[in-house]
Parts: sequence; structure tokens; C-alpha cells
Amino acid sequence: MTNSLVKKLTEILEKFPGVGPKTAERFVFHLFRQSPENLKEIANILEEIKNKIKICSVCQNFSITDPCEICSDNQRQKNLICVVAHPQDVVALEKTGFYKGTYHVLNGTLNFPEGLTPEKLKIKELIERLKKEAKQFGVKNIEIILGLNANMEGETTSLYLMKLFKPSGIRISRLARGLPQGSDLQYADEITLGNALKDRKEIN
Amino acid sequence: MTNSLVKKLTEILEKFPGVGPKTAERFVFHLFRQSPENLKEIANILEEIKNKIKICSVCQNFSITDPCEICSDNQRQKNLICVVAHPQDVVALEKTGFYKGTYHVLNGTLNFPEGLTPEKLKIKELIERLKKEAKQFGVKNIEIILGLNANMEGETTSLYLMKLFKPSGIRISRLARGLPQGSDLQYADEITLGNALKDRKEIN
Repeated sequence: MTNSLVKKLTEILEKFPGVGPKTAERFVFHLFRQSPENLKEIANILEEIKNKIKICSVCQNFSITDPCEICSDNQRQKNLICVVAHPQDVVALEKTGFYKGTYHVLNGTLNFPEGLTPEKLKIKELIERLKKEAKQFGVKNIEIILGLNANMEGETTSLYLMKLFKPSGIRISRLARGLPQGSDLQYADEITLGNALKDRKEIN
Repeated sequence: MTNSLVKKLTEILEKFPGVGPKTAERFVFHLFRQSPENLKEIANILEEIKNKIKICSVCQNFSITDPCEICSDNQRQKNLICVVAHPQDVVALEKTGFYKGTYHVLNGTLNFPEGLTPEKLKIKELIERLKKEAKQFGVKNIEIILGLNANMEGETTSLYLMKLFKPSGIRISRLARGLPQGSDLQYADEITLGNALKDRKEIN
């Protein structure tokens, strides 16, 4: 079974997050065991993703509509923006069930040694967005919550954004230190995350 | 992003071996990040699997040809058959590099409490195969190696097959106890597996 089809599929699956050669091999055989109908369905879903998934021009999250469901929801506060690193963080925060603001997905955190400079993140999109919102709501009525991971990269990014936006007069807060130090936001439980949202602290 | 596309894809990925809801979510976002070209390629590969992957009518392994590469290889000994539970076990044994016999994939091991009875495994295919080989080589010249996991289900299956085939006069051996007790064959290292093959012991 050392043919090109198996090899290509294994190579693709090895690039999935957290997947090594052994797991990729197990996935290959899992796929071989599927009925033609199931494989057809997966192939169709991939085609659908290819055709339908876009980036929301407001919050930069993945979406099938533009603006996304959250950004086009009139019940959400447009002047309260939680800045997060990844789309998964939005999923985690939405699960707390009480956040009524919107999001901004940076698509990473600052990491200068790895070449993740401010230009690589969706920071200029955030600046443009805040300019527009300032016109609509007034700069004093905008709050951004820094919803970044409680680790080095998260801290660096928070500090960078704080220095960038503080002079404008925008209110800036960050998630309360309910989060255990060094942990990843997307793995926190819903109660901890909920507390962290409620107890967010303005940065002076 | 709580739409049906994401939900369907998450449900499919959660069924992959060893994948839970969190990992499935990470895979979904990994797929969203792919270029349309990459997604098209994966979709095409799934279509190819659907159209090309068959079961070898001799050894019951997955294959794109029937008989498979191994069963149709004239250099392999057709009267030496290593009986394994899963296709991954064939991959593991092939990596030792010196096995020149063929395989028979049972597609599982006996587990009566979970309803895995002999009828669920490819045992009647093995009986038919051995009948044919007996005509060609003579029953005394056939050897089957029981290449099953060194755990309860593997032992049960080995014992079952031993009782089934011993009366026929076929030589039966099993992999040497180089395998650490309780381990899964597909995770053993190549040297341990190689020793286990070389030191296989005939069952009396």
C-alpha cells in the first residue's frame, strides 16, 4: 500500500494540528473504512468550505456571511469589542453565554523571534474599525477588551495594543486574572472564562 | 459560526480515532485556513479513495488492486501467512523489512461481550483460502503465524484459531514474546517486532 494516494493523504493529515505520523496512519485507515457515501459527503463539505468560507470584513473571523452572524446581529453592542488571537477563542467566549459585545480576531499574537510582527496581525484592520466606530459612538463610548492568552505572547500583544490605543482615549480593559497563568484561553472552562469576562479590569 | 456546515464537519471529525470535540474544532479551523486549492486536493483524494480502494479478495487488506501488491508479488511465500487484526499491523510488520510471507487481515479480534464473534471477522475467508493453498502446497507445507496483539482479545483470538486449524495439520506459530505484555502491535518498534517475527514459536 505504498502508493502515491496513501502517501499524499498521510502527508496532508500530518499537517493537522497535533497529528503525527502514527495518528495520520490511523486516520488514513479510518477513511478507508468509510462508505463511499460518507467519503462523498466529506468531499462535498470540503468543496462547500472552499466556496463559502470567507473572512468577516468587520471582525476578521471566519464566516459564511460578510459581515458575520455576530457583527450583523443588532442585539450585540458594537462599541464593545473583545480582541482575541484565534477564531477558537471566539467559540470559547461565546460558550459563556452572556457576552453581548463583538469580537476582533487578530489571527495570532505578537512573537518577534518567530517573525510575528504587528503587520502580520489584523491590527491595521482594528485601527480602521475603531476610527469608524469612534465617529458613530464617540471615542469615549468605545471599550476594547484584550482577550488574549495569559502567556508571554499574549502579554506582549496586550501591552502593544494598550500603548497603541490608550492615547486615543478609548477605554481598554483586559480579562480578569481568573485564568490560570500560562494556560491557553481556548482550553479554559466556561465558568473561569465567564468570571474573567465579568471581572475585566480597566488598564490605567 | 453555529451553522450546519461547521456542525456536520465537526461531527465527522469527532468520529476519527482518538479525536474529541476540542481536537475536532481545531481541525475545522485548520481546514478553514487552507487554500481553495488544498481543499480541492483533499476532496479529490477522498473521491479517489471512494473509487479506488477495494478489499483484496485473498488477504482482505485494503488495496487499490485485487489481489493486492503483496498477494500478487511472486517473491512472497504464499504458504506462509501472518494473521493480523488490522491493516495497520501489516504496515508495522512490513517495516521490519525481512518478512517474505503474506498476510491475512481479520478486521478485528474476538470480543464476545462486545459482539465481536467469529462470524464478524474474516475467518471463513481464511478457511477458504487455506483450503485452496492446501491443494497447491500440501497441508504440511503451510504455516500460519498468529500475529495478534499481546492482550486479552488477541490471546482469545489466537486460541480460537489454534483450536480451529490445529486438527487440519497446518503448522501454526505465534509471534515471540518479544512484545511487551498488554501492548498494541501497531505501536511496537521495528526491532522488537523483527525479533518477534524471527523467534516465532510453533504451538503444540
